[in-house]
Amino acid sequence: MTVHLVGGGPGDPDLITVRGLELLREADAVVYDELAPLELLAELPATALQIPRAGMRQRQIDELLVSLGRRFETVVRLKGGDPFLFGRGREEVDALTAAGIPCEVVPGVSALTAVPASAGIPLTHRGLSAQVTVITARSAADDDLDFDQLAQTAGTLVVFMGVARLEELAERLVAAGKAADTPAAVIANGTTERQETVVGRLDEIAHLARGVSSPALTVIGPTAAFALADPCLSEPTSRLALV
Amino acid sequence: MTVHLVGGGPGDPDLITVRGLELLREADAVVYDELAPLELLAELPATALQIPRAGMRQRQIDELLVSLGRRFETVVRLKGGDPFLFGRGREEVDALTAAGIPCEVVPGVSALTAVPASAGIPLTHRGLSAQVTVITARSAADDDLDFDQLAQTAGTLVVFMGVARLEELAERLVAAGKAADTPAAVIANGTTERQETVVGRLDEIAHLARGVSSPALTVIGPTAAFALADPCLSEPTSRLALV
Repeated sequence: MTVHLVGGGPGDPDLITVRGLELLREADAVVYDELAPLELLAELPATALQIPRAGMRQRQIDELLVSLGRRFETVVRLKGGDPFLFGRGREEVDALTAAGIPCEVVPGVSALTAVPASAGIPLTHRGLSAQVTVITARSAADDDLDFDQLAQTAGTLVVFMGVARLEELAERLVAAGKAADTPAAVIANGTTERQETVVGRLDEIAHLARGVSSPALTVIGPTAAFALADPCLSEPTSRLALV
Repeated sequence: MTVHLVGGGPGDPDLITVRGLELLREADAVVYDELAPLELLAELPATALQIPRAGMRQRQIDELLVSLGRRFETVVRLKGGDPFLFGRGREEVDALTAAGIPCEVVPGVSALTAVPASAGIPLTHRGLSAQVTVITARSAADDDLDFDQLAQTAGTLVVFMGVARLEELAERLVAAGKAADTPAAVIANGTTERQETVVGRLDEIAHLARGVSSPALTVIGPTAAFALADPCLSEPTSRLALV
């Protein structure tokens, strides 16, 4: 009778929260995004219904959650990262609330901090970056963003899900006045064993990142150069392990 | 012989990661921030050394971590939120690396997403906000920030740790051109039982939030108005529980 929107974290299954794991272990049904850490499905009771989001539209997911919430005691909507940062979590909360189904939001570790960290990159650093701006490459393509303003933004710019649109994004930022030699890093499959990190100048990063797999996150700004500060960091590791 | 920088999450002790809890349970020594969820200290082995950060300066913490790392097998540096977002985590990594002490960064759920979520506020929402900007009120006071640029920023602005400096911050944003009626919310002790949420216009939020306790986080932008969308949300809850 309750639907729990659970952030599955950035990729490494050990980075789910204690509360999130507890809910998975007692779930009657789970609707999961393919970008959530799928190893977590092994934690479900053997009888639990497992439903991939697959190609479902948002409205279809909303309706499915309502019908599952009516039928089962514990329903988990498992998402990658955090449900309320580019996760459309509030839309699902609204659909459930409108139908009178109780729900709970369990935050997760967002790729926003965890993926750069796994490549040694802090989003803020004294004297280098006191401000973080977060966008998606899709918003950029949809013209939801003001590039003149973005190019003037100080600190660190983080772009979610950007590899396919990275070339256009970088070109538009440079055209709008962002320095072409701003450090940039692309981290694919961050926090997992398949992690790949590419570092370079903003005007060459799309070229360097060609062939990198999805999902990926791009960091643009002075702290991106930290990914080069230690050679250990170029090895794929599930977490940042130095020395 | 390894120092683990562990993000303790936003307040609710169940929002630490599975990996973070596992490390606390085997720690020989822990250096903890007072803003980390202190209930987690109950998970430590009875013999573990517990050291509060208290008034230590960053350099003193760095040196302490190095000496603990030389002496013990498993050392945990427990921080609130995430170590790499306003956590000065990379400075500690650098100090440990320079001293040849292996270290690991275990990301945590940042207050950035979890605290607004606990008041029903998503940072992004289709048609309302496609961009998030994150600053600290301290950076603002230190003149690390460009208010003309911040006032032009679209989407959602999140201010960490801002109650004492909120009045000045709001005034400077409005003076730089941010609309005085932009929705704003202050959430104190987010995700805990002591959570308090205050919502209003940007030009009145500092007045409304007077007397609210620390730590607090401020959200400025159209999605802040979501905190009003459901009366259930005004009750202090450890997580967003609707209906």
